[in-house]
Amino acid sequence: MSDIRRYDPDVKLSDMVEFDGRLYLAGQIARDTAAGMKAQTADVLAQIDALLARGGSDKSKLLSAVCYVADMRLKAQMDEAWLAWVDKASPPARATVEARLGSAQELVEIQCIAAK
Amino acid sequence: MSDIRRYDPDVKLSDMVEFDGRLYLAGQIARDTAAGMKAQTADVLAQIDALLARGGSDKSKLLSAVCYVADMRLKAQMDEAWLAWVDKASPPARATVEARLGSAQELVEIQCIAAK
Amino acid sequence: MSDIRRYDPDVKLSDMVEFDGRLYLAGQIARDTAAGMKAQTADVLAQIDALLARGGSDKSKLLSAVCYVADMRLKAQMDEAWLAWVDKASPPARATVEARLGSAQELVEIQCIAAK
Repeated sequence: MSDIRRYDPDVKLSDMVEFDGRLYLAGQIARDTAAGMKAQTADVLAQIDALLARGGSDKSKLLSAVCYVADMRLKAQMDEAWLAWVDKASPPARATVEARLGSAQELVEIQCIAAK
Repeated sequence: MSDIRRYDPDVKLSDMVEFDGRLYLAGQIARDTAAGMKAQTADVLAQIDALLARGGSDKSKLLSAVCYVADMRLKAQMDEAWLAWVDKASPPARATVEARLGSAQELVEIQCIAAK
Repeated sequence: MSDIRRYDPDVKLSDMVEFDGRLYLAGQIARDTAAGMKAQTADVLAQIDALLARGGSDKSKLLSAVCYVADMRLKAQMDEAWLAWVDKASPPARATVEARLGSAQELVEIQCIAAK
């Protein structure tokens, strides 16, 4: 059996878990939640880039993603940042739904799975 | 390592991504969002059938599914279409939660993972 | 190809699906939905333990989890039960979002993927 490798485990969750050629990421939220939707999304995606790099992968190997947006009226702003970032030749399967997040200031959370 | 194959990638997302014997589908929504919940669900499931067929799989090989319904009071109607469709000998692990979707007319979105 | 094994399939869903060294669990909800958030979460986690045990796994092999809470103001209570339960050396990647669940009494639903 493959080993399980955990990245930045704290007492509650790991930021990323690697198993059998796949990387399972925790839901990422923006570090600066005073920012608007586009900036929060860009920051979330930058954090995903950083995690994938640590796992020896990158955004061209994303398999699936779920985008949770706190207010669906801001989805277009989320998509602006997404479109500026996503590998256009290799985009993941994605779902986007509205959900309130950990605090009222958090506008977007993205959880994804990537191949290594 | 297995190759990653993407089905219908546009600039934003792929409708389905294949990797290592698994198919990761994008969240599917109904093409006619003027329809009611049961008809929208049946259409979503028909689209899932079509994607799975293109990937050399079918609904008997579904592993997991998340059903997002815009109004939990309509869950029974969603389930009517689901029960008429699902392979009763081989149903997936499923979660159903309420979430507002891309537009007020979209009543259901289903995202799933299947074995090939 | 690996075989697919389904645990407790009923006509609608399976409680857990095993494929290629991984266990895909259905969203688990508390059996007693009159209980408060902490007790409901503890019960959900006990059910996850029981399913994982049947699949020859345990919570130290969790890869990812999504926690749906009906009211984000109760997240701290959910986390109390989570922290008392999770394997602190091996926590999964996790996302927590707010979503109304199958009934107004259901306060938490957790869906996860584990390695076997």
